[in-house]
Amino acid sequence: MIIVLKPHTSEEEIQQVMEKVRQAGLTPHISTGAERTVIGAIGSDAPSKKEIFEALPMVEKVVLILKEYKLVSRDFKPQDTIVKVGDVEIGGDEVVVMAGPCAVENEKLLIQAALAVKAAGGRILRGGAFKPRTSPYSFQGLGVEGLKLLAKAREETGLPVVTELMDARDIDVVAKYSDMIQIGARNSQNFTLLKEVGMTNKPVLLKRGISGTIKELLMSAEYIRSEGNNQIVLCERGIRTYEDSTRNTFDLSAIPVVKSLSHLPIIADPSHALGKRDYVPAMALAAVAAGAHGLMIEVHVNPAEALCDGPQATYPHVFMELMKTCRRVAEAIGKKMPYVPIS
Amino acid sequence: MIIVLKPHTSEEEIQQVMEKVRQAGLTPHISTGAERTVIGAIGSDAPSKKEIFEALPMVEKVVLILKEYKLVSRDFKPQDTIVKVGDVEIGGDEVVVMAGPCAVENEKLLIQAALAVKAAGGRILRGGAFKPRTSPYSFQGLGVEGLKLLAKAREETGLPVVTELMDARDIDVVAKYSDMIQIGARNSQNFTLLKEVGMTNKPVLLKRGISGTIKELLMSAEYIRSEGNNQIVLCERGIRTYEDSTRNTFDLSAIPVVKSLSHLPIIADPSHALGKRDYVPAMALAAVAAGAHGLMIEVHVNPAEALCDGPQATYPHVFMELMKTCRRVAEAIGKKMPYVPIS
Amino acid sequence: MIIVLKPHTSEEEIQQVMEKVRQAGLTPHISTGAERTVIGAIGSDAPSKKEIFEALPMVEKVVLILKEYKLVSRDFKPQDTIVKVGDVEIGGDEVVVMAGPCAVENEKLLIQAALAVKAAGGRILRGGAFKPRTSPYSFQGLGVEGLKLLAKAREETGLPVVTELMDARDIDVVAKYSDMIQIGARNSQNFTLLKEVGMTNKPVLLKRGISGTIKELLMSAEYIRSEGNNQIVLCERGIRTYEDSTRNTFDLSAIPVVKSLSHLPIIADPSHALGKRDYVPAMALAAVAAGAHGLMIEVHVNPAEALCDGPQATYPHVFMELMKTCRRVAEAIGKKMPYVPIS
Amino acid sequence: MIIVLKPHTSEEEIQQVMEKVRQAGLTPHISTGAERTVIGAIGSDAPSKKEIFEALPMVEKVVLILKEYKLVSRDFKPQDTIVKVGDVEIGGDEVVVMAGPCAVENEKLLIQAALAVKAAGGRILRGGAFKPRTSPYSFQGLGVEGLKLLAKAREETGLPVVTELMDARDIDVVAKYSDMIQIGARNSQNFTLLKEVGMTNKPVLLKRGISGTIKELLMSAEYIRSEGNNQIVLCERGIRTYEDSTRNTFDLSAIPVVKSLSHLPIIADPSHALGKRDYVPAMALAAVAAGAHGLMIEVHVNPAEALCDGPQATYPHVFMELMKTCRRVAEAIGKKMPYVPIS
Repeated sequence: MIIVLKPHTSEEEIQQVMEKVRQAGLTPHISTGAERTVIGAIGSDAPSKKEIFEALPMVEKVVLILKEYKLVSRDFKPQDTIVKVGDVEIGGDEVVVMAGPCAVENEKLLIQAALAVKAAGGRILRGGAFKPRTSPYSFQGLGVEGLKLLAKAREETGLPVVTELMDARDIDVVAKYSDMIQIGARNSQNFTLLKEVGMTNKPVLLKRGISGTIKELLMSAEYIRSEGNNQIVLCERGIRTYEDSTRNTFDLSAIPVVKSLSHLPIIADPSHALGKRDYVPAMALAAVAAGAHGLMIEVHVNPAEALCDGPQATYPHVFMELMKTCRRVAEAIGKKMPYVPIS
Repeated sequence: MIIVLKPHTSEEEIQQVMEKVRQAGLTPHISTGAERTVIGAIGSDAPSKKEIFEALPMVEKVVLILKEYKLVSRDFKPQDTIVKVGDVEIGGDEVVVMAGPCAVENEKLLIQAALAVKAAGGRILRGGAFKPRTSPYSFQGLGVEGLKLLAKAREETGLPVVTELMDARDIDVVAKYSDMIQIGARNSQNFTLLKEVGMTNKPVLLKRGISGTIKELLMSAEYIRSEGNNQIVLCERGIRTYEDSTRNTFDLSAIPVVKSLSHLPIIADPSHALGKRDYVPAMALAAVAAGAHGLMIEVHVNPAEALCDGPQATYPHVFMELMKTCRRVAEAIGKKMPYVPIS
Repeated sequence: MIIVLKPHTSEEEIQQVMEKVRQAGLTPHISTGAERTVIGAIGSDAPSKKEIFEALPMVEKVVLILKEYKLVSRDFKPQDTIVKVGDVEIGGDEVVVMAGPCAVENEKLLIQAALAVKAAGGRILRGGAFKPRTSPYSFQGLGVEGLKLLAKAREETGLPVVTELMDARDIDVVAKYSDMIQIGARNSQNFTLLKEVGMTNKPVLLKRGISGTIKELLMSAEYIRSEGNNQIVLCERGIRTYEDSTRNTFDLSAIPVVKSLSHLPIIADPSHALGKRDYVPAMALAAVAAGAHGLMIEVHVNPAEALCDGPQATYPHVFMELMKTCRRVAEAIGKKMPYVPIS
Repeated sequence: MIIVLKPHTSEEEIQQVMEKVRQAGLTPHISTGAERTVIGAIGSDAPSKKEIFEALPMVEKVVLILKEYKLVSRDFKPQDTIVKVGDVEIGGDEVVVMAGPCAVENEKLLIQAALAVKAAGGRILRGGAFKPRTSPYSFQGLGVEGLKLLAKAREETGLPVVTELMDARDIDVVAKYSDMIQIGARNSQNFTLLKEVGMTNKPVLLKRGISGTIKELLMSAEYIRSEGNNQIVLCERGIRTYEDSTRNTFDLSAIPVVKSLSHLPIIADPSHALGKRDYVPAMALAAVAAGAHGLMIEVHVNPAEALCDGPQATYPHVFMELMKTCRRVAEAIGKKMPYVPIS
């Protein structure tokens, strides 16, 4: 940690800061330039002490050298983490596609979507039973009933399921019926929820916040990891910017950045990022080429009747074609995707 | 709601959209321009049906005419809402100042801060018992112990207290010890929490999300209001932008905008928005001049020892001077602030 | 154009707006809902009249149905535009790579870079002679001397050259020595410059503004096109957001969006978007997969000695490998890239 | 400047960086922590050498300690700069209001606006002769004819005039007819233009870029100052964010931030920031309370007929009332505004 003092700081004040560094259990190291005095504060615990020094009146700014996240960093664990959902491995050479409807609506639509996902080579079924909706007047999901339908779809297709948890009080029931627990973008800094899933041994799909930085995404993963759960997959799903021709701005750069900073796998969700189905295929391919460990795509057999996010839902036949092109792109960069089983 | 069709839409497709409008319980109204056909869909329920039409393949875009929030809108209730916290009224002519430490740390520091707040004319004591922290390694608050200290400080000073709720499971204990429940910026779209406080009769202080739009803030208030609770105060606390010389960008324009769109009171929190105590006084005055119904300011007797947000905490003597200038500015625009009692 | 009136607008005021619509040469079309009266104003010229109606006191908001850009829209010209730079065609099936140093520094470095670019299959040489630098104390480019070196490199390699124009007074000399004129991100709304290049018959590479919307990019292209020049290539180069782990946020979604809205080709510049060479290859591949008509990549034989943007410059050997993978990805989505000539 | 090396950097590489620091004319200062080696590079010229080190493969990041701007910084000149426009002083105790129409349209409207501005206590007349418009089909200003009308209005009212320069080729004629040259938001990083006005001795009004950082604003001022012109007034006019209920987000925090970093005066333009006249008064008052040295406000006698920005133009009678309240707020914080002369 580098502590930059204001110009004209007195010798006495410098000593006060040095003393404060020592009190914090760090080793001070002074460097005097022509215009600023700078104090290095050395120690692996430095990041958590930053505010102490920012609060001092003679301090101009404090710059961290070490990262605030530890357990999820590549510094801490250089090898890629592989997360296992059912028998599907995320984080290795295979590009894993999770797909399905935004919300679980009824058994028939869910099974149809699940079969379409499987037929095209999707490996995990997604579907929301608890839905975070901006408006209290929108469909809020089927709740536990939806979870049971997901379990039924798994039985029918063999695909493991991922679904969102919104309320810590539902964690047991969500864990019971699903194979992977999703923390949605709006809950990316719901620390209560992060701690709860951290105390389970279920794989977690952690979405980046709507305006979350990559660092915050890793700090949220650190919350989960620090409770003991190391089965975490990160997900880029678009961030909020001024550009309004897409629902969010799909920050695919997060993929190489996360891969350099962390050992955790990262997938991408073009459906939520773009918000319009016409733009999903191009950006799904881009995500694969950027090196994503997987994709999450919304597929609905009849988007015009969807109770949630119909405009971004991909038609099954488009999804099928997209999966074929995804595989070619994956192979072009040295990765794999499953060959579509003959149905 | 205005449904704009893609160019070259066939007559048959137009009829399909018209029929869909009728099925949604709305009245269609067609308008044919040279380059686009536009269908108006009339009905007070239109906003909640938007996605149905966006999902149709022949639709280019859908534009809402009516707002998605209702109960909190000025269209619905033209008169200003007054929220009562203890015997303090927010939403009228008085500029109400809530102040205190970021986190409750111990009894002595809290009482000292509370007395300083009261001496300067602050009307409500703030202090966090449950703290949302970006890092799992930071101080997470004293929890219930902190709530009890807040209640003690209220006893000592007569100031009602506001404190943050982070976990729906804590709502009873938070409601028991506090006079106003705060929903923090990171939980601004935690719909679980919004519904819970909506079911109480406690006043709620709802902070704007870190990258929340004004519309989303009002939608979150609608969540609370639609459950029955109409004691809601909104709070502008800075939004995330690319500018990094302040912690967030203090969007004071939200004050006149919210006042034109909603009947709910709105206050401003310069401490969290700016993140540096030196900038707080200028922006607190700006918020009063912009017409805020109140301010929330972090005050700490010894910021260098604060366990949370020390860099933005205002010193008591600075706060005292600021309050005097605030009163002059309030009077300049025809509002009131309490005269500081002789201590 | 849809004109939404405020609630409680009187019949007389409605008639005033109707009359104003007629005066503007548009056809009014009234639609009365339960809570709002809406007036459609029909005519292909409507977008340019928007402000007239927004300025009226009884108007709540105005929504455009037609786009403000015309000549560059796909509505106006459905077929893709092919732009020819020397004998290189941009906008067709080939992914065209432009590469070279940020700035022209001296003959030796430029020729080395140009040969490396050519050897790897790059089709156009880039290099700045006039450099827009944030600091007046940074290297500002070699000026006309740099242009002459670019012409020399073209002679040596056969690659056409693209270089930036910053000052309208330099247009003749820039046009003389180069094959394509670049308008940089900071000049994306320098309307003086846009009009000037619009009056030439040189191909123009128009970069998206640092915080430009896609619509603004197309409006800037419209400026050029409306002066007569239809040889325009657009370029996504990253936009400014709150995320700071990359220099800008690379908005690759602009590629499918622009392709749906406009007939103009669009390329992508990962070097400027990312700002760090390590992230460039992944994002170059992503841009190709997203459907970009080309790439612009900074290549320098010795980045540590570069006078400008060294941190983002790609090493020649990395560029060579990247080009091979790019070709595989291009082929995976049905596009072409030149086979690297045996050197 | 602090150079942070990647983990596991070899001793040899460390020596290479040390040597490079010396070659750059700086003094190296090494500090070895448990997880990172950090090299301080001391010298007042360090900021301009940043990229050299960022380009090195063994460097993780480089952090500047000193600012990149010098002449405009408060470190360089602690006392406030006073800028004189005609006999009006900007930068002292008086809050100076510049007002007038967006564009000069004709003599009658301009004189009417100028008289209204003067009657209310405005000190400088604004009006655009050259207009940067997003669309090539919008009114582009009267050009030199407009400049002559501004000079006429000055004669009539005694108010000095400020007007925008868009093209370096117009600098002589703009300087001839006006008292202060405005550099607009879209040209905030048009370095060609900045250098040109830097070589005149005319006062310059430099607007913050549409997505400009405060640092970039000061760097642009440094461009002007480094050419010799020290008569610079900065202007906050709203920045681009995701919030769309106002045209831009009015970043009033820029006022205290700029005042702490620089000796130059800063004013605020609520008309462009908000984009809607109803919100202008509240935010004009907020700007005064925040400590702005002045305001720029668009006033039009008939906004519904304005050729440019009618929606944000303030009516003369509203402006008159606003000026009275501004004066009360100015006095509340210890500043002055002129008493309106009896007309």
